[in-house]
Amino acid sequence: MTLRLISLLESISAGDVSSEDAINLYYDNILNNEGLSAWVTLASRDDVLNRYRENKTFYDKSVLKGLPFGVKDVIDTSGIKTSSGSPIYADRVPFSDAVCVMKLKAAGGQVVGKTVTTEFACFHPGPTLNPYDLDCTPGGSSSGSAVAVTTNMVPFALGTQTAASIVRPASYCGTYAYVASVGEISLRGVQPLSQSCDTLGFFCNDVLGLKLLRSILTDNKISVDLKRSSQKKFCVVGSDILGPVDDEMERAVNKFSKKLMAKGLCEVDFEPVVDVESLSEAHKVVMAYEVSRNFHYEYCFPEQLSERFLEIMDFGFSISHNDYEKARNFVFFEKVKLVDFMRHVDFLLCPASEGVAPRGVHNTGSPHMSRAWQILGLPVVVLPAEFYQGMPMGIQMIGRPYSDDELMDMALYVAGG
Amino acid sequence: MTLRLISLLESISAGDVSSEDAINLYYDNILNNEGLSAWVTLASRDDVLNRYRENKTFYDKSVLKGLPFGVKDVIDTSGIKTSSGSPIYADRVPFSDAVCVMKLKAAGGQVVGKTVTTEFACFHPGPTLNPYDLDCTPGGSSSGSAVAVTTNMVPFALGTQTAASIVRPASYCGTYAYVASVGEISLRGVQPLSQSCDTLGFFCNDVLGLKLLRSILTDNKISVDLKRSSQKKFCVVGSDILGPVDDEMERAVNKFSKKLMAKGLCEVDFEPVVDVESLSEAHKVVMAYEVSRNFHYEYCFPEQLSERFLEIMDFGFSISHNDYEKARNFVFFEKVKLVDFMRHVDFLLCPASEGVAPRGVHNTGSPHMSRAWQILGLPVVVLPAEFYQGMPMGIQMIGRPYSDDELMDMALYVAGG
Repeated sequence: MTLRLISLLESISAGDVSSEDAINLYYDNILNNEGLSAWVTLASRDDVLNRYRENKTFYDKSVLKGLPFGVKDVIDTSGIKTSSGSPIYADRVPFSDAVCVMKLKAAGGQVVGKTVTTEFACFHPGPTLNPYDLDCTPGGSSSGSAVAVTTNMVPFALGTQTAASIVRPASYCGTYAYVASVGEISLRGVQPLSQSCDTLGFFCNDVLGLKLLRSILTDNKISVDLKRSSQKKFCVVGSDILGPVDDEMERAVNKFSKKLMAKGLCEVDFEPVVDVESLSEAHKVVMAYEVSRNFHYEYCFPEQLSERFLEIMDFGFSISHNDYEKARNFVFFEKVKLVDFMRHVDFLLCPASEGVAPRGVHNTGSPHMSRAWQILGLPVVVLPAEFYQGMPMGIQMIGRPYSDDELMDMALYVAGG
Repeated sequence: MTLRLISLLESISAGDVSSEDAINLYYDNILNNEGLSAWVTLASRDDVLNRYRENKTFYDKSVLKGLPFGVKDVIDTSGIKTSSGSPIYADRVPFSDAVCVMKLKAAGGQVVGKTVTTEFACFHPGPTLNPYDLDCTPGGSSSGSAVAVTTNMVPFALGTQTAASIVRPASYCGTYAYVASVGEISLRGVQPLSQSCDTLGFFCNDVLGLKLLRSILTDNKISVDLKRSSQKKFCVVGSDILGPVDDEMERAVNKFSKKLMAKGLCEVDFEPVVDVESLSEAHKVVMAYEVSRNFHYEYCFPEQLSERFLEIMDFGFSISHNDYEKARNFVFFEKVKLVDFMRHVDFLLCPASEGVAPRGVHNTGSPHMSRAWQILGLPVVVLPAEFYQGMPMGIQMIGRPYSDDELMDMALYVAGG
């Protein structure tokens, strides 16, 4: 049975596979991978199968055919515990679904469970392990969602990104992923962390699946337009601009770039029109300032917050409003320069992480490959690139602001359909 | 007893007035103005007095001394019904306070009740009447908050703005008001309407009060810096740029501009560097597109939505993603031009509404004085300017992006301390 989302849906439509078979297969994978601790809350196989059977007419006519999906535990799910990775919300059961969950359910998806997040989608890790090496981090904050998708426990899973929370786990776990332009997809019902940086995204096992999910979440028809993709121009952004990148990752990006050129795309030099290091610093300032103001309530219970979270809160409170404004203004002017540069460049190609997943499960790896693009609010697609010593590494394609559809089509062409 | 917020707080600190006296006076005003229908939910006088007495030590030491305030009914209040002006949420009682409510409570304010909002802070009006003429709209969507402040039922009240929801009622009701830069103040716990345009704001009876509230809501110390205010430059933006403005409003703005020049400020010509009409159109597109995606759940109950709301939903769904992206890109480039122009201009001076409140209570007046600035995310302070035939009119000062503090100081200087 193919597990590529769209092929699977086609097989179900054609009657070659049943939704029940698919659900059972995903549940088998869930059971086989229990040791990875990807889930905080999980529905039973019988519940999911019974819901399918009881609503067979609806699911059979639907786009997603009753397939299960995972939801990062900072995203509200009606009647299902949503704890945001924090003991403060250990027993919190939201009344309603977040809008993104509603839309996937209305399209025929079934919430099979909540995936592990770091505490409040920030830096303190949960218990999830990397399936490629149990001694390595799966990345975070969307740890459980990335692991659930890469091990085929579910065909797709929702995540969020404020710094590198989708890009990094996608790279470390070898999945495809998409990070929406900031402001593009509704965050109604998603726990806010930093309003200038928060965005929704998801993991899937190919680009076409990402496109389908994006069309559902934005209420737009899916349409694929590859006709001009071979004429696209891109820049490689490497360690000279981004800071430390492992050699094997640098090689992987260069190899990927050659693959793109072989497909007809044109690499042009990245002119350092923006100061990526200062953008990363501005991201830190804006994020910490906003986190410290957003977590007014939780800060009343310091004994239930991790040291890492308290550090960010304290750093946020140490930032003057003037410095916050300065950082936001700086970002605006840098964005102007990058947008101008990108009038003639269709996307940027970067490492999605410094290298393979680092050893140790007490931190989720460095976010420095993502901070700059995230504070600029740019859309990102992550593609698995290479394995190094048995561990996956991903690259990221970064698009122009508000050009998510165009970026997806380029990623589809690049990834080979 | 003075009802200027900061003078009142000083009088309470000095022991000249008690918090109980103040609470009683506000409650007297609430009772005297019941016919205006400013409130959806209201605590009893005894409850508020008792809470003060039971926590006297806390309140007496606090910044806000136990004074009552109003909260627009799209903002969550723990244990108090929050219906967003919709029958769909007639019985909804949130578990937690929105962050903005928490911060005001932690600073010693007491939520006295929820103020009337239009349906989902959009265009379908609630029952609130304009205290200056019961046959005229109070404006919307923050109708109840504006009326509660102008009639001294409370010293201040929270509102939100997505199009003109604070600026317009402030103008029609003759109050001071502030609209934060988009993204500046946490909207955690505030019902989202359109993520690219939503922002928090509040009404008060002078600029110093607005400054104090802003310092509480942003967790920053209050500081006043007027030393360079007399050297500021401003542009008047009038009907030639904004579209229809009544003659009396145009006169009021010009008179206000003369007052500023008499105070030493310098008027410079507004160069039409941005296309305000097209920005207003872009605002309509972005807002409707996002509203239609955010209200997935509510759209399942069309019989419980107003015709006006359904129209916006349908308009939103009729907008292609391409047109949405185009609008967002257009806004970005217009913002670049305006920011460049405003390097040499400190603020824009505009009518806060077309004129005085229009007759009729079935709509809340035109938002065309605000749409352009709102989609650009700029901070705004509204000052009462003139009366015309017994009805108030306000002007708005519009600041540079992310320069809310600077704008407040200019407003303080202009309004005369």
